[in-house]
Amino acid sequence: MHLLVMSKKHPKTRKQTGLAPGTMVFTGTRKVDEVKVHYLKYNTTEIFETEYTSHDAVKVIPVDQELVDWYDVRGLHDTDLIESIGKSFEVHPLVLEDIVDVRQRPKYDEYPLGNFIIARALSFDKDLREIIIEQVAIYFNKGLLLSFQENKSDLFIDIRNRLRTSGGKVRSRGADYLCYALIDALVDNYFVVLDEIEDEIDTIEQRLLIDPDEKIKIDIHHLKRETLKVRKSITPLRDSVSRFSNSDSPYVDQGTELYLRDLNDHVIQIVDISETYRDVLNGLQDLYLSEVSNRMNQVMKVLTVVTTIFVPLSFLTGLYGMNFVDIPELQNPNGYFYLLGAMVLIFLALVVYFKRKKWF
Amino acid sequence: MHLLVMSKKHPKTRKQTGLAPGTMVFTGTRKVDEVKVHYLKYNTTEIFETEYTSHDAVKVIPVDQELVDWYDVRGLHDTDLIESIGKSFEVHPLVLEDIVDVRQRPKYDEYPLGNFIIARALSFDKDLREIIIEQVAIYFNKGLLLSFQENKSDLFIDIRNRLRTSGGKVRSRGADYLCYALIDALVDNYFVVLDEIEDEIDTIEQRLLIDPDEKIKIDIHHLKRETLKVRKSITPLRDSVSRFSNSDSPYVDQGTELYLRDLNDHVIQIVDISETYRDVLNGLQDLYLSEVSNRMNQVMKVLTVVTTIFVPLSFLTGLYGMNFVDIPELQNPNGYFYLLGAMVLIFLALVVYFKRKKWF
Amino acid sequence: MHLLVMSKKHPKTRKQTGLAPGTMVFTGTRKVDEVKVHYLKYNTTEIFETEYTSHDAVKVIPVDQELVDWYDVRGLHDTDLIESIGKSFEVHPLVLEDIVDVRQRPKYDEYPLGNFIIARALSFDKDLREIIIEQVAIYFNKGLLLSFQENKSDLFIDIRNRLRTSGGKVRSRGADYLCYALIDALVDNYFVVLDEIEDEIDTIEQRLLIDPDEKIKIDIHHLKRETLKVRKSITPLRDSVSRFSNSDSPYVDQGTELYLRDLNDHVIQIVDISETYRDVLNGLQDLYLSEVSNRMNQVMKVLTVVTTIFVPLSFLTGLYGMNFVDIPELQNPNGYFYLLGAMVLIFLALVVYFKRKKWF
Amino acid sequence: MHLLVMSKKHPKTRKQTGLAPGTMVFTGTRKVDEVKVHYLKYNTTEIFETEYTSHDAVKVIPVDQELVDWYDVRGLHDTDLIESIGKSFEVHPLVLEDIVDVRQRPKYDEYPLGNFIIARALSFDKDLREIIIEQVAIYFNKGLLLSFQENKSDLFIDIRNRLRTSGGKVRSRGADYLCYALIDALVDNYFVVLDEIEDEIDTIEQRLLIDPDEKIKIDIHHLKRETLKVRKSITPLRDSVSRFSNSDSPYVDQGTELYLRDLNDHVIQIVDISETYRDVLNGLQDLYLSEVSNRMNQVMKVLTVVTTIFVPLSFLTGLYGMNFVDIPELQNPNGYFYLLGAMVLIFLALVVYFKRKKWF
Amino acid sequence: MHLLVMSKKHPKTRKQTGLAPGTMVFTGTRKVDEVKVHYLKYNTTEIFETEYTSHDAVKVIPVDQELVDWYDVRGLHDTDLIESIGKSFEVHPLVLEDIVDVRQRPKYDEYPLGNFIIARALSFDKDLREIIIEQVAIYFNKGLLLSFQENKSDLFIDIRNRLRTSGGKVRSRGADYLCYALIDALVDNYFVVLDEIEDEIDTIEQRLLIDPDEKIKIDIHHLKRETLKVRKSITPLRDSVSRFSNSDSPYVDQGTELYLRDLNDHVIQIVDISETYRDVLNGLQDLYLSEVSNRMNQVMKVLTVVTTIFVPLSFLTGLYGMNFVDIPELQNPNGYFYLLGAMVLIFLALVVYFKRKKWF
Repeated sequence: MHLLVMSKKHPKTRKQTGLAPGTMVFTGTRKVDEVKVHYLKYNTTEIFETEYTSHDAVKVIPVDQELVDWYDVRGLHDTDLIESIGKSFEVHPLVLEDIVDVRQRPKYDEYPLGNFIIARALSFDKDLREIIIEQVAIYFNKGLLLSFQENKSDLFIDIRNRLRTSGGKVRSRGADYLCYALIDALVDNYFVVLDEIEDEIDTIEQRLLIDPDEKIKIDIHHLKRETLKVRKSITPLRDSVSRFSNSDSPYVDQGTELYLRDLNDHVIQIVDISETYRDVLNGLQDLYLSEVSNRMNQVMKVLTVVTTIFVPLSFLTGLYGMNFVDIPELQNPNGYFYLLGAMVLIFLALVVYFKRKKWF
Repeated sequence: MHLLVMSKKHPKTRKQTGLAPGTMVFTGTRKVDEVKVHYLKYNTTEIFETEYTSHDAVKVIPVDQELVDWYDVRGLHDTDLIESIGKSFEVHPLVLEDIVDVRQRPKYDEYPLGNFIIARALSFDKDLREIIIEQVAIYFNKGLLLSFQENKSDLFIDIRNRLRTSGGKVRSRGADYLCYALIDALVDNYFVVLDEIEDEIDTIEQRLLIDPDEKIKIDIHHLKRETLKVRKSITPLRDSVSRFSNSDSPYVDQGTELYLRDLNDHVIQIVDISETYRDVLNGLQDLYLSEVSNRMNQVMKVLTVVTTIFVPLSFLTGLYGMNFVDIPELQNPNGYFYLLGAMVLIFLALVVYFKRKKWF
Repeated sequence: MHLLVMSKKHPKTRKQTGLAPGTMVFTGTRKVDEVKVHYLKYNTTEIFETEYTSHDAVKVIPVDQELVDWYDVRGLHDTDLIESIGKSFEVHPLVLEDIVDVRQRPKYDEYPLGNFIIARALSFDKDLREIIIEQVAIYFNKGLLLSFQENKSDLFIDIRNRLRTSGGKVRSRGADYLCYALIDALVDNYFVVLDEIEDEIDTIEQRLLIDPDEKIKIDIHHLKRETLKVRKSITPLRDSVSRFSNSDSPYVDQGTELYLRDLNDHVIQIVDISETYRDVLNGLQDLYLSEVSNRMNQVMKVLTVVTTIFVPLSFLTGLYGMNFVDIPELQNPNGYFYLLGAMVLIFLALVVYFKRKKWF
Repeated sequence: MHLLVMSKKHPKTRKQTGLAPGTMVFTGTRKVDEVKVHYLKYNTTEIFETEYTSHDAVKVIPVDQELVDWYDVRGLHDTDLIESIGKSFEVHPLVLEDIVDVRQRPKYDEYPLGNFIIARALSFDKDLREIIIEQVAIYFNKGLLLSFQENKSDLFIDIRNRLRTSGGKVRSRGADYLCYALIDALVDNYFVVLDEIEDEIDTIEQRLLIDPDEKIKIDIHHLKRETLKVRKSITPLRDSVSRFSNSDSPYVDQGTELYLRDLNDHVIQIVDISETYRDVLNGLQDLYLSEVSNRMNQVMKVLTVVTTIFVPLSFLTGLYGMNFVDIPELQNPNGYFYLLGAMVLIFLALVVYFKRKKWF
Repeated sequence: MHLLVMSKKHPKTRKQTGLAPGTMVFTGTRKVDEVKVHYLKYNTTEIFETEYTSHDAVKVIPVDQELVDWYDVRGLHDTDLIESIGKSFEVHPLVLEDIVDVRQRPKYDEYPLGNFIIARALSFDKDLREIIIEQVAIYFNKGLLLSFQENKSDLFIDIRNRLRTSGGKVRSRGADYLCYALIDALVDNYFVVLDEIEDEIDTIEQRLLIDPDEKIKIDIHHLKRETLKVRKSITPLRDSVSRFSNSDSPYVDQGTELYLRDLNDHVIQIVDISETYRDVLNGLQDLYLSEVSNRMNQVMKVLTVVTTIFVPLSFLTGLYGMNFVDIPELQNPNGYFYLLGAMVLIFLALVVYFKRKKWF
């Protein structure tokens, strides 16, 4: 099932128990061959970027409070590399433990030396018709932002491009605004996923109203689970963003608050939409069940009408197929035709009766 | 489905992802050929109004704090026009982004230079038997009010008329009271929509009690979805109005609070009624399901009664239709009549038995 | 349906939209020919009462803070009269609007010059087996209490009698205590209505356990709706009474608080009981559905037993009714009796089989 | 039904409406012939007890703050007696009204001269398999505790015994601790009742898994109602105990708080268990409904298999029982045996087919 | 059932009622022959451990605030031993009562001389496919930690090992951190149990989609109950951990707060997952019910098709099996073949009709 963690394609690594708090154990699936660290340094006027692939090559440049240093780590299996990065920037061990444990619930925590936020990137796999969940962890303080994701694909390509074209607002602000921008990019994607779900719901509703088949109940069940994934990803994010926006941490600038409030509105909107989808799916399920009952009724009526009409008629034929020595009707030369006539009358009477009952 | 956004008649434009916050993207459908801006300026003694259709013609008149300037923009596809209006009045970019994104959740936000409220105008389309939702955005500060809607139709004609006839209370108050009056006009319309829904519920209940047909389950489902639309529109508005009425913003006058509290009462009443409708519709659905089961029972009883009566009788006719060389009863000259008598007795016994069981 | 407003006997007037706040529109049904105003003035030692029927005759006597003036208005269609009373006592226009709009949700509001409470009087119409809802509005300040109701019948006869017999506690206290006493009298009546509902539930449960018929599902549905009426009337009253009892308004005396707290306890108790009834009714509905399924099972078993026993036997009779030239069994002189024996054995075997399966 | 009040054995007296607040009306059933008042006076070193049965005999001894005076009144029908006791100790009239109205919701109220708590004593009647509810009211201040119950049976025998054996902690503490001890004794009994319910649930579950019969649905319904009784009794008690333990009343000692917190834990545990039982009972009901559906399926399969096998065979026998002048097969001397062979083949084919479908 | 307490294998001891608060009564099952007390004393540099089995041998060493003394008591039936330990360390009697009453709800309480936390250790018994619950009680103050469990098995072996290898963080911190570490170890195990449940859910879902059998409904019911156990164990723990982490008790160090917050995140995550499982299981149950209905439909269709085809044909054969003297068709030499042809046509027409209706 791997409900809230990843696609069915990947087996799940389970965390060992009994480890000391702060012990780093990668609980995901190795999705990249080699961990890549993309490094980007900017302020309003300058921008510099590079990419490290080798372990030793990651050079930690002392943080310059005038600039924002963004290390974007893609691939989490190399816990040594992540630990060494963590140590360079004095990241708390509990943060490092959470970064590599990809089964985290979205959350926002403030540590003495930096703030830490975990969110989920959602994407809709059109082939599997399934939502793919990827965990994204972001740690930031005054001039530093570390982001961690499992895949090679660049989730934040749009933001990187906005950074590259000088003049964007993000260039003139600190790491807290960059963190907001990253989360905002993730949340924007939720709307895309919800649109896909809405399309699926539309399709199911059409099928249900026009020609309901048996697969519908499985499709509704499947869609309810995918919607549950969205809900379970966004509900804790709501609390996180709300606490982020009300933060009085020294690493969160007052001016970012308006943007975080706007992000908060979007998150609440997603919660709202996903709850609406749940309600609609429950409604469709009820409708499907009514439909099944109705069809059963339909089948039963056919059976009953056919039986009720022919069983008495067959009884009559049986009656006159008996071999008693003296059945007076049988001797009547027109007996057969009288009986045929009676049968037609019975038949018509029953048909009229059932018509009136609207049974067919 | 287009659940909470617009009627089925209009396709939905989806918002691009990866855009910088504050980027204006119109997500609705172009419902007017040309954006019209209706301008109205008034104080207790004077009133002046005009209408701009051309882009360049919108003359921004410096705001006079003694007067209220109301710009009512109808049509949202011309984002350039809206941006230029926004810039003239120093409206925050996040507000402008929200104005043209017609998929917003109702909300109330306070910005340093003005307050912003998003609500939904509901109307009931009697042909489609569907609720039409239109987003309305209102931005106001001391002497200025900007309102934005998608359609050409004047949602606020009554208020405009009250303004024109001098002496109304609204003429002697500021932009915050005008904003209250606009929201109040929208909310008044919710009652009309709820009345339509109640009529539909009444009709369904009558049909259910008198002559339930298969379409009822779809009608109930449809009505539950329409009621959901009202609930999903009014619930966030409740929070918005509540925060509006408790606001300590410099743009909200103390004297307006009593009116906002009254508006709040109405909003809560709508929430209450729409929840009642949901409960009643759920009750009707349960009743419908019981009804379906009962009808099935009815059908089954007919089948069982007919089968139970005629199958044993047919067995008897079969018995005496056999061709054994020696079946003594067949030789009895009155055998046929004895058998007929026995059959009538069996028939009557079974009829009495089923009558007692109240099966027909 | 007229769910929460009034009995089915009365058509509903709908409020016009687009009116200025504070515009008085009577939304109920004219239930009295002429509005009557009952006037009662009292303090610990004196009491004086009279009744006005003509419009002009209502003489507004200046309020004497040592005395309590109680105007009890019965009939709401004469908005002019109510407006003139309102103006005499400086009642806020929003209060007057709410008084004549009989579709209000129970609420408690404090205005600068007086407090305003809306509640619902419930009574159980034994013929319609329906709860009749009537709106009661009460406005009071230091020495004045105005009460408004739609019907001629005196809801507060007991209190009036307690007032007339000097010595009752109510004579020695202010208008706030009188308001408490009026609400308390209304709430006392809720218990009576709940007792009626409990009787109905008892009856339904008895019928369900002893001899369930098809009407039960409609009766349960009906009772759930009546219980919903109570719940929807009392839940908002709970908030109102709670805010009333915690009020720091100058018109509410400290000494009244204990009584309001006691009233609050009663209101919570009613909420509690009505929720219990809802749970019990849902339980009865589930029980009814199980019962329907069980009965279906019963019917199916009869059908199956009869079919399973007689269809193979009939097959045998058919077999020996065939006209093949050579069916050896037919030539056996005792063939018929052997077959009869075999049939009896089959019959008994199947009867034993079904007995063991407990199918009948 | 008498849902939350008492056993079915006792009719319910209904409270009159329209009475002044503080009017004492006994709403229970007279369960004792004569009201008995058990009086117990103690401090760390001394203890004295006596019992009054006659009305006049109750001698009110002035309260000595060094001692605790406990009057335990058994039987509530004699409102005069209770009123005279109440007057002697200056008990508020609203308290007296609540004491004799046995339909109260559990609550905790603080009055200027004493604190008042209402709780319910539950016991499980093994014969009726029903929970018996009795209301207990306790009023206490510095050195005085009044307890009121309907029955003669001593609910608090254990505490009385602990008091008699000097050295128990209760002897060294005030009336607030005694009140805690009484409530704690009542709450302890809830666990006993819950154990009885758990036994009943176990039995039902066993029956459901092994041999479900029709009575199960009524037993589940009955048990859900009994569990509802516990939940409706304990949920308001939770709030009461919580407010009791956070009280800053002069009559509640600081040192009692730890004990009240512990009592609170027990109450929450009971709430928790009773909610678990509700969930489990709902689960059992779902299971029962599945079971009913399954059984229906089973029955239907038998019917279908028998019909599908024998109806075509019977058709064949009918075919060769016709009296056409020329049916070539009939003339074939081995025709009968060929047909028998074909029938056996059809029979076996259908049996194999249904076996594969796992229909039997 | 023994729902939330222990495995079905062990009978439950019920607590006597009427005991004084603080009376110790062991309510569990004696699972060990002899109570063992494992004693461990450590600070950053030193560590010393021993094990006592005899009652008298437990030497209470005066607590040295520089060191942490951890007494781990395994087996709870020897209440005398536990009482004597309790007295040595001045543990509050209410704490001791709770330690030996193994039916406690998880909770966190602060007493003047120490803090007390109750949690549940969960493990999944693969044979019974059942969650085993064991109660763990922990009491700690500055330099002392007492832990109590029922079984001999060492729940905390990992922590003990981390303590033995010097250098672990736990060695350098106080008893509050040790308490955190113990709870954290218990909570880690919840994830293991949840993984087992997820595996079971996966299996059920596969069976449901591929080949649903009747046992599924019982397996779903069973799994819902096991999930309920997790939820009922973790939900109160959430409150406890949250209060622990916000504690301002002198026995909880500031530095431990970060770790407790992290623990809190884990606990919330478990709540979240267990609620997801509940939702998924409810979805599976709905799916199962749809499946049952569908299967019934399937069965009914087979029955109806067979009946509708053969009953009219059999009627025809009966018609021409009658013995009337003059049935003209019978004299037609080709009558039999004409009839056969007509029957084939009727058969084909009905088959086409049902094919179109998609009934098979």
